[in-house]
Amino acid sequence: MKWVYLSGGVGGARLLRGLSEVLGPEHLTVIVNTGDDFDHWGLRICPDLDTVMYNLAGLSHDERGWGLARESFEALDMVRRYGGATWFALGDRDLATHLMRTEALRGGESLTAVTRRLYRALGIAHQVLPMCDARVATTMHTVDGRALPFQRWFVQEQCAPALRGIRLEGHPEPHLEVLQALRAADAVVIGPSNPYVSIDPILQVPETRAAVFSRAVFAVSPIVAGQAVKGPLATMIEQLAGTKASAGAIARHYAGEGGQQLAGLVVERGDEAEAARLGQGVPIIGAATVMRSHQDSVSLARTCLEAFSKWGHS
Amino acid sequence: MKWVYLSGGVGGARLLRGLSEVLGPEHLTVIVNTGDDFDHWGLRICPDLDTVMYNLAGLSHDERGWGLARESFEALDMVRRYGGATWFALGDRDLATHLMRTEALRGGESLTAVTRRLYRALGIAHQVLPMCDARVATTMHTVDGRALPFQRWFVQEQCAPALRGIRLEGHPEPHLEVLQALRAADAVVIGPSNPYVSIDPILQVPETRAAVFSRAVFAVSPIVAGQAVKGPLATMIEQLAGTKASAGAIARHYAGEGGQQLAGLVVERGDEAEAARLGQGVPIIGAATVMRSHQDSVSLARTCLEAFSKWGHS
Repeated sequence: MKWVYLSGGVGGARLLRGLSEVLGPEHLTVIVNTGDDFDHWGLRICPDLDTVMYNLAGLSHDERGWGLARESFEALDMVRRYGGATWFALGDRDLATHLMRTEALRGGESLTAVTRRLYRALGIAHQVLPMCDARVATTMHTVDGRALPFQRWFVQEQCAPALRGIRLEGHPEPHLEVLQALRAADAVVIGPSNPYVSIDPILQVPETRAAVFSRAVFAVSPIVAGQAVKGPLATMIEQLAGTKASAGAIARHYAGEGGQQLAGLVVERGDEAEAARLGQGVPIIGAATVMRSHQDSVSLARTCLEAFSKWGHS
Repeated sequence: MKWVYLSGGVGGARLLRGLSEVLGPEHLTVIVNTGDDFDHWGLRICPDLDTVMYNLAGLSHDERGWGLARESFEALDMVRRYGGATWFALGDRDLATHLMRTEALRGGESLTAVTRRLYRALGIAHQVLPMCDARVATTMHTVDGRALPFQRWFVQEQCAPALRGIRLEGHPEPHLEVLQALRAADAVVIGPSNPYVSIDPILQVPETRAAVFSRAVFAVSPIVAGQAVKGPLATMIEQLAGTKASAGAIARHYAGEGGQQLAGLVVERGDEAEAARLGQGVPIIGAATVMRSHQDSVSLARTCLEAFSKWGHS
């Protein structure tokens, strides 16, 4: 059995920790969003790739949701003295990641290759691939007429400016390994990440999208009881889909674009009815989806496996 | 009265702390060696500019002689996990300096301009100028036939390979401000830095050399009782000048090249006779030159001022 998992940052990374425990490296390949990537202090920052890496290596700061558990901010403090940009907090250990990656990219190594090297160095056996090697940028088009790079909107402006649309700038092409993994996959699982800024960028690459929806695709809802577990998703659904946030809105989002049918949607228990109402016939699986502990992640991973054995071959 | 001070790292920076206390910003301009500069972790490192900056800002680690007093090495520790280069230890707070500088240089700012900005941010009022804006590299030619960049020889190989010569690679041109400062100067003071790798690179720029030796030039000997206060200088004198290390060898070094006469050489008390024997008539000033405290630096600075009032107008 071969699975491909599509991941953004926090929520997606958390379920992946469980999945990587129940599916060995030969059974699971991960494709990670790079739409959030940006340059800061002259370094290439890949927030989702790093959140996934730190989670898989057991180094992540679980309460904060980003960065490393054992972290200091001495460089940031000194940057402040120089009057440099401090709106995005890079930790000292985290800096090593960005330094090694940026130096490698400048030397001509691909993002795919340097990602593999860094993951291996931290002892991660699973194959984790960036969605593409080219530089792309998720851009937030605001109601007040601005086009903000994602991190500017998300971190610096704290998600305050209302949105009228989101665009992925750049010319993404999937790495051959992305397409090979998808073609060999029995199922694709879309993690409980933000659909607009974490998953859509991956699916906006035409070849990737076609390859994903040629497989049995399961998704895990990041909306629980009408609320986002973390982040600005609920408000984004209201602004961008013009509807109240619900697990059903997630079902409609993935099923609605281009008419592809999901093989199944995992939602929080209690959200099944609303998900079914808006889900256009997608099989709905109720489960405990809020992951507070590692055991929660493993349980949710097992739920995904069970959903596959029930609906994956239809 | 206007002075220009030529400086390398540790010893040069230490005297400069004293000089900057007795000479205000309108009376003292500093020109710093950049021959040691190199790239590490994709960042532009300027060891002497930074040692001078941290000294003038009161942030330097005085026992170690390089870097910052309050420093941690978390990024270095993480770089080690990635299998990156760890032979040159960059601290976390120090990293901020290299990050800000490298980003500015990539954005097209000159080394002179970014240096001024960083120094100002740390509250330094004196004008400190890199010897040139162009990338140059002091290269150590070893007896075993290798050409090593300075930091490789100095830090990674711990000065072990015997030398047959040293060359400054690149096309240095002094910044206009370097020449202006020298033309306006009443005296030039060569700090107690390593002549071969800290001062000669500055003097190997022809326009700078001519401008320096058109003034009254004083030097402070970095050799005390036949020993280098710090570093490999004594051995270098033996290998490169074919003579025993002494204050006299320093006098001969500066006076010997091109026949320029020093206005005076400050040596450790007890070294006067040997300095005079080899100094080809250069006035010799005996003083306490080993700086263990800030008060020592101020005293030595005052000695330089007294030497100038005695021999500077001859």
